[in-house]
Amino acid sequence: MEALLSVIEITAILAFAYSGMIHARKSGYDYVGVLTIALVSAFGGGTLRDVLLGNHPLYWIAHWEFLIYVLLLSPIALFLLRFNKDFSSRRSLMLIDALGLGLFTASGVGIALKMRTPILPAAFIGVITATFGGVLRDILSNQKPQLFQPTEPLYATCAFAGACIYISMLRLDFLPTFALVVCIAVTFLLRISAITFNLRLPF
Amino acid sequence: MEALLSVIEITAILAFAYSGMIHARKSGYDYVGVLTIALVSAFGGGTLRDVLLGNHPLYWIAHWEFLIYVLLLSPIALFLLRFNKDFSSRRSLMLIDALGLGLFTASGVGIALKMRTPILPAAFIGVITATFGGVLRDILSNQKPQLFQPTEPLYATCAFAGACIYISMLRLDFLPTFALVVCIAVTFLLRISAITFNLRLPF
Amino acid sequence: MEALLSVIEITAILAFAYSGMIHARKSGYDYVGVLTIALVSAFGGGTLRDVLLGNHPLYWIAHWEFLIYVLLLSPIALFLLRFNKDFSSRRSLMLIDALGLGLFTASGVGIALKMRTPILPAAFIGVITATFGGVLRDILSNQKPQLFQPTEPLYATCAFAGACIYISMLRLDFLPTFALVVCIAVTFLLRISAITFNLRLPF
Repeated sequence: MEALLSVIEITAILAFAYSGMIHARKSGYDYVGVLTIALVSAFGGGTLRDVLLGNHPLYWIAHWEFLIYVLLLSPIALFLLRFNKDFSSRRSLMLIDALGLGLFTASGVGIALKMRTPILPAAFIGVITATFGGVLRDILSNQKPQLFQPTEPLYATCAFAGACIYISMLRLDFLPTFALVVCIAVTFLLRISAITFNLRLPF
Repeated sequence: MEALLSVIEITAILAFAYSGMIHARKSGYDYVGVLTIALVSAFGGGTLRDVLLGNHPLYWIAHWEFLIYVLLLSPIALFLLRFNKDFSSRRSLMLIDALGLGLFTASGVGIALKMRTPILPAAFIGVITATFGGVLRDILSNQKPQLFQPTEPLYATCAFAGACIYISMLRLDFLPTFALVVCIAVTFLLRISAITFNLRLPF
Repeated sequence: MEALLSVIEITAILAFAYSGMIHARKSGYDYVGVLTIALVSAFGGGTLRDVLLGNHPLYWIAHWEFLIYVLLLSPIALFLLRFNKDFSSRRSLMLIDALGLGLFTASGVGIALKMRTPILPAAFIGVITATFGGVLRDILSNQKPQLFQPTEPLYATCAFAGACIYISMLRLDFLPTFALVVCIAVTFLLRISAITFNLRLPF
C-alpha cells in the first residue's frame, strides 16, 4: 500500500511538473521561473496539504529524490517544448493530467485520514492536494486561476466525487487498495468525460 | 469564554463567506470558484493564523461543522445574488463585515496570546486573522488587495486599534470577557466611523 | 555563530523591508500596504522557510524586536522616498540587496540543516528564504514575479550557487563561520557581477 502510494506520487508529480513547465514558458519566464512553476505545480498541492495538516517533514523533504526527478525532467521538457509549441492541448497530456488528478486526490484523502481528520475536511484536503498546485501555478503566473473559470470542463468536481467515493468505501470496510484504485478510476473517468463532452458547472 | 469565542467565529465566518461569494461572482467565477473564495474569505485569515502559530489541527478541521454552515449558505447566497446584483454596498453587509472585523481580531489576538506570543506579534496576528481572508480573496481574484488601496476607508487600522486595546485591557487585569466585548465594540465603531466619514490614511 | 546569524538577519531584514516599501509606493499603496509589503519582503522568505520546516515559533515571533526595527524604519523610509523618487535603482541599495541575498541564503540553509533536512532540499530552502520575500511582494502587488523575468540579471541562481558552496564546505568540515562568510561572499560577488555584466539565464 505504501509502495503503491509512492508510485502514485511519482507519476503524478512528473505529469504536473511538465504541465507547469509548459505554463511557465507560455508566461515568458526564464529557467528559474520554469523550474519554480514546475516544482510548485508538482509539489504545491501536497505541500499545502502537509502545511495545513501540520505533517512534517514535508514529503519533498523526506523523499527528496522527487526533486531530482523534476530536475532531470526539466531539460528534456525544455527541449521538447522547443519543437512542440502547443503540446499542452495534446490528448496524451490530458490523460496523464486526469490520472494525476485522481492520484493526488487519493493521496490527499489518505494522509488526511491517517492524521485523524474528519471526513468532510479530509475530502476538501484531497481536492486541495489535487488542484491547488495548479492554482498556485496560476497565481505565480499572475493569472486568474483556471480552476475557477466557468468555461473550463469539470476538474475540482471530479476530484471531490473521487474523494467522496474513496472515503465511503473505506468506511464500508472495502480493502484500502481496492478503494484507492476505484477512487483513481472514478476521478479519471469523470475528468475524461468532462473533457470529451465539455461538461461544466451550470452555475 | 470558549463558548463566546465560538459564537463569535460562526457569525464572522458567515459574513466573510457571503462577501467572498459576491466577490467571486463579480470576477465571473463558477461554483467551484465561488465556494473556494467563500471558504478562503471566511477561513483564510484564521488558517494563516494557525499556520503561523503552528496551531494544529486547524480550527476548520477541528470544528468542521463551520464548513457545513458555509456549504449551506452557498445556494442561498447564489439565489439572493441572482436578484440583488450589487448587494455588497448595502449598509447591512457593511455592519456585519465591521462586526466580523472586530470578532476576528479578538479571536486572533486571543489564540496568539494563549500560545505565548509576545504582545506586538500577537497584535499583528490579530490584524492578519481579521484582514488576510480578504487579501487572499483578492489574490485568488487576480486583483490588487483592496486592503492596501489609499481610496478605501480605514480597515486594518481599526483592527490594529482593537487589538491594542484588547491586549492592554488583558494586561491591566480586566475581565477577559469584558476586554473581548470592548475590543469588538472599538473595532466595530472605528470601522463604521471610517466608512461614514470616509476616513483614510493620510499617507 | 548564533550572534553572527542574528546580525546577518537584522541587516538583511532592513534592506529587504526598505526595497519592499519602495515597491509598495510604486504600486500606489497606502501606509497599511507599505508596511505589509515591507514586512512580507523582509520576513516572507524566512516565514515560508519556518512554515515549510515546521520550525515554531516563527523567528519574527521569537525575535519580535525585528518587527520594531521595520516599524521604526518605515517613517524614515517614507520621508526619504518623498525626496528620492527612484531610489531603488541606486548602486547602494543594490549592494545591500546583494548582501541580503547572501545572508538570507546562508540563514535558510543553516536552519534547514539544523533541522536535519537532506542537502538538496536544504539548498532549495536557502534559495526560497532568500528570494520568496520578493516573490510574495510581487504577488501582493499583483505583478508577475521579477524573479522569473528573463530580462533580469541572475538572482536565484546566485543564491543557489552560494547554498551549494555553503553545504559543500560544511560537509568538508570547514569551520562553520568560515563557510558562512564564503557563502555570503560568493553569493554577493556573483550577484554584483550579474548586475555589472548584465548576466542572464540563456534559456
